[in-house]
Amino acid sequence: MKENKYDDLNFFVNYSAMPRSVVGLEAAGEWPTFRALLPNLANKSILDLGCGYGWHCRYAMEQKAKQVIGIDLSKKMLEKAKALTEHSGIRYECRAIEDVVYDEATFDVVISSLALHYVQDFQQVCQRVYHCLVPGGVFVFSVEHPIFTAMASQDWFYDEQGHRSHWPVDHYFSEGLRKTQFLQEEVVKYHRTVESYLSNLLDAGFAINRLCEPKPSAQALKDYPDMVHELRRPIFLLLSVSK
Amino acid sequence: MKENKYDDLNFFVNYSAMPRSVVGLEAAGEWPTFRALLPNLANKSILDLGCGYGWHCRYAMEQKAKQVIGIDLSKKMLEKAKALTEHSGIRYECRAIEDVVYDEATFDVVISSLALHYVQDFQQVCQRVYHCLVPGGVFVFSVEHPIFTAMASQDWFYDEQGHRSHWPVDHYFSEGLRKTQFLQEEVVKYHRTVESYLSNLLDAGFAINRLCEPKPSAQALKDYPDMVHELRRPIFLLLSVSK
Repeated sequence: MKENKYDDLNFFVNYSAMPRSVVGLEAAGEWPTFRALLPNLANKSILDLGCGYGWHCRYAMEQKAKQVIGIDLSKKMLEKAKALTEHSGIRYECRAIEDVVYDEATFDVVISSLALHYVQDFQQVCQRVYHCLVPGGVFVFSVEHPIFTAMASQDWFYDEQGHRSHWPVDHYFSEGLRKTQFLQEEVVKYHRTVESYLSNLLDAGFAINRLCEPKPSAQALKDYPDMVHELRRPIFLLLSVSK
Repeated sequence: MKENKYDDLNFFVNYSAMPRSVVGLEAAGEWPTFRALLPNLANKSILDLGCGYGWHCRYAMEQKAKQVIGIDLSKKMLEKAKALTEHSGIRYECRAIEDVVYDEATFDVVISSLALHYVQDFQQVCQRVYHCLVPGGVFVFSVEHPIFTAMASQDWFYDEQGHRSHWPVDHYFSEGLRKTQFLQEEVVKYHRTVESYLSNLLDAGFAINRLCEPKPSAQALKDYPDMVHELRRPIFLLLSVSK
């Protein structure tokens, strides 16, 4: 199944109101970690899998990328992306990540932000990304962390007083489909283990540069005291790998 | 602190009764995965950090290793190891893992089974192992999984009927000391995130070959029905890395 929840009107309206949709990358807690994993983008050809509003595409152009292709299955997301984009070097294409096939050595860098947990066959994505990267090319992506995706509830366990008691983990080795709730709508995601993420990448031929589990900065904890709960379990998994 | 719980008499007696202490590697659920990560050991020089009863040292000699050094802080463990060992190619040394310093390029393979979560400074271990390996040498180790070590309780969350409800995770980003219970005794361990394990290895110069989260085999699930709970969360993390 190719997940396209973002063309559901209610879901899209709710997504549009999220800080990261209004303000952009600076409102995304994991962005400083993601940015630090990116190589120098100047004069590079970039592919963004699941580009959404195109924030990462525009960031790449600000970093003097040569050209950027942003892929997304949602027409609504791409309309918004185009409306926000003035750079002529960005091309948006309405396609599922599962359908992305490019010639060998087409891109210097492939990125993907919080989209690949919607894709069932991660092994195939790894093979295709490896194929379309130049030798030495880099693939940087973020997904929801396996600790976060293991249970479909994706929520804390609360005590009788309604306080967040701990984060529950179950079904860790039952990989595959999870029907979860996000922005008051049912969304289909795919749970994979940490081993599977790493093995799929290694099997495709990638070398692992870095694995990150972002946590809130001291400043974020000061500005948003409720963020202290984000120190209790990882929510995102980021990887940088090289061909 | 250099953990030497294994010279505590009560603890040692309890440890001695565990299946893996009586039967050896075949009774250790993660052994098939560990063994699959090992390179060909024939004619190799091996170092085993936290060798315990010496099961892995003897396995290496059975695989025609040239020589094996087994390190352990516990005199009781090493006495038992020596009593079980007939191979002349194995040398046991009573030392803390933290004190292991060898000349550059001394070993072809360094292994460690369920010992490094007792060591506070994993970064230092990575640097020293890297130093004492030959170029292309391999470091294979197992530790308790960060999902397992995050909470000091290291136990399931039970419902009112006493059933295992789920595995609780908390304090994930609070790395460091955990006072846990093992074999009815207090044992000091160190919790690290998955990111820290990987980053420490990469920073030391290692390339990641493979990351594994072992789960019970179909046969094990058939033989020991209670093992079904081991599919609910990972308990071990195994890594193979190369210099």
